[in-house]
Amino acid sequence: MSLISVGSVAFDAIETPFGKVDRIVGGASVYIAYAASNFVTPVQVISIVGDDFPVSEMDEMKSRGIQLEGMEIVAGKKSFFWSGRYHLDMNTRDTLVTDLNVLADFIPVVPESYQSSEFLMLGNLAPSTQLSVINQMKTRPKLIVMDTMNFWMDIALDDLKAVLKKVDVLMVNDSEARQLSGEYSLVKAAKKIMDMGPRFLVVKKGEHGALLFHEDHVFFAPALPLEEVFDPTGAGDTFAGGFIGYLAKTKDISFENMKTAIIVGSALASFCVEKFGPNRLKEITKTDIEQRISQFVQLVNFDIDLV
Amino acid sequence: MSLISVGSVAFDAIETPFGKVDRIVGGASVYIAYAASNFVTPVQVISIVGDDFPVSEMDEMKSRGIQLEGMEIVAGKKSFFWSGRYHLDMNTRDTLVTDLNVLADFIPVVPESYQSSEFLMLGNLAPSTQLSVINQMKTRPKLIVMDTMNFWMDIALDDLKAVLKKVDVLMVNDSEARQLSGEYSLVKAAKKIMDMGPRFLVVKKGEHGALLFHEDHVFFAPALPLEEVFDPTGAGDTFAGGFIGYLAKTKDISFENMKTAIIVGSALASFCVEKFGPNRLKEITKTDIEQRISQFVQLVNFDIDLV
Repeated sequence: MSLISVGSVAFDAIETPFGKVDRIVGGASVYIAYAASNFVTPVQVISIVGDDFPVSEMDEMKSRGIQLEGMEIVAGKKSFFWSGRYHLDMNTRDTLVTDLNVLADFIPVVPESYQSSEFLMLGNLAPSTQLSVINQMKTRPKLIVMDTMNFWMDIALDDLKAVLKKVDVLMVNDSEARQLSGEYSLVKAAKKIMDMGPRFLVVKKGEHGALLFHEDHVFFAPALPLEEVFDPTGAGDTFAGGFIGYLAKTKDISFENMKTAIIVGSALASFCVEKFGPNRLKEITKTDIEQRISQFVQLVNFDIDLV
Repeated sequence: MSLISVGSVAFDAIETPFGKVDRIVGGASVYIAYAASNFVTPVQVISIVGDDFPVSEMDEMKSRGIQLEGMEIVAGKKSFFWSGRYHLDMNTRDTLVTDLNVLADFIPVVPESYQSSEFLMLGNLAPSTQLSVINQMKTRPKLIVMDTMNFWMDIALDDLKAVLKKVDVLMVNDSEARQLSGEYSLVKAAKKIMDMGPRFLVVKKGEHGALLFHEDHVFFAPALPLEEVFDPTGAGDTFAGGFIGYLAKTKDISFENMKTAIIVGSALASFCVEKFGPNRLKEITKTDIEQRISQFVQLVNFDIDLV
């Protein structure tokens, strides 16, 4: 069993009310891969970096069962760089710098050794890039999960709609679900979006948790109330990685099992925000994850006697 | 077993994106009483109205087991009037008119027939008014639940702190919890607020659900994702009424039972928003409530196998 993680690999500069870091490894595919590698290996990365990307970071990923054959290294060029500053509420941020660098010319290539992967996670990238990966798969994966963002709805909506027809699960945040559907009610938004292709919709609401929609069913997972959110960068990608990693491990893509996968993703995301970048994800053990999931069970568990 | 509901009884004019109503009965005590009367009777109201308040409304309340002996009717004066307009997102509203009328001179009197009540719900009112009711009770109720709002934190913080020392449960929304504590993290805010007196804190987050804090424990209840929110007026008071009504019915004020009470309150609130004012609350049956609670169980129920 293996899992493909498509997405950026980058350097980030991050400033939060609690501190700042000028250069830390980041990018969707890094967070997805670290999160998923707790559940399934190999995690097969498809991405692109410049020759400034440290070998030590690649070695650390490889030691976790993350394969980098699909990560192109471009000589003489720089890796994607993003810089942002979080506001005091940690829910909003200003992007200070976006240097696409190598990502501007990214044409993904799926290595032959990745072809047997049954789980495909498409991190946030241009929809045409996401579609290219799907089209290169000789056997349609058992499950394709896709992240996207408002930016692509603004400038590449037709491309986005074309990818939506080919995926099983779409992950967006609440404002993106509203923008994509033109509906304020998330229930109505979910119905419209599922009519566009995906059979499942995950709506991420940050500190307010996440909703999973499928047909007429809805499941809600809370976010763990935390004393401190140190750095939210990568939490959404970590959530995605935990979600699809758990599904790949259990090989069960039913709505019932996706509920559990949402809880697992939420648990992983709750670690991510505790330190800068992916630092906390590099530390956690299976025991840490089990304890955190138990906290989620406690958080929502109640006994009901009907009225 | 009986329950006292202290709070405004009023006329409201409400405008939402879906329609408007120029004059409908409202006020915290009305919503609390209708919600709680599904679980326990009598519900004993302490409030004040003018002689413009319709006898038919009072008769309808009485027919539900709501006692009005503690509701003063002031001849020649008008009832409290509030008018507001909701924004498209239904989470924010502008207050257009606040005519206190009789409420400006409200001095609550606890009738002798209410003295045996074991459950006391203090709806949002001046803290000094809330304290007066507590002080009039010859036997300290088994449970005192208190609602308040940012307005009193701004102009009567010392009074508010005096009441906090005497109550068991405080209910506020997330921004009020942050204001009262000076902490952005709700976990830290909860600790500080519980140090001020209440052993339990309920943080209402509207469409994002509610959190219950007690000692080192936290419980999360989601709000039901609804296709339409028609009118949010009174949802918080309805939540409070369902919460304390269920506790009064079960006579169990443990943290475990309060979890269930939070779910019950959320279920009642989800009805409230379906029609203008308390109209929907006047219609619902025990069967409706049971079905709605089952939806909440489905919404958060998952099976977890640890990693």
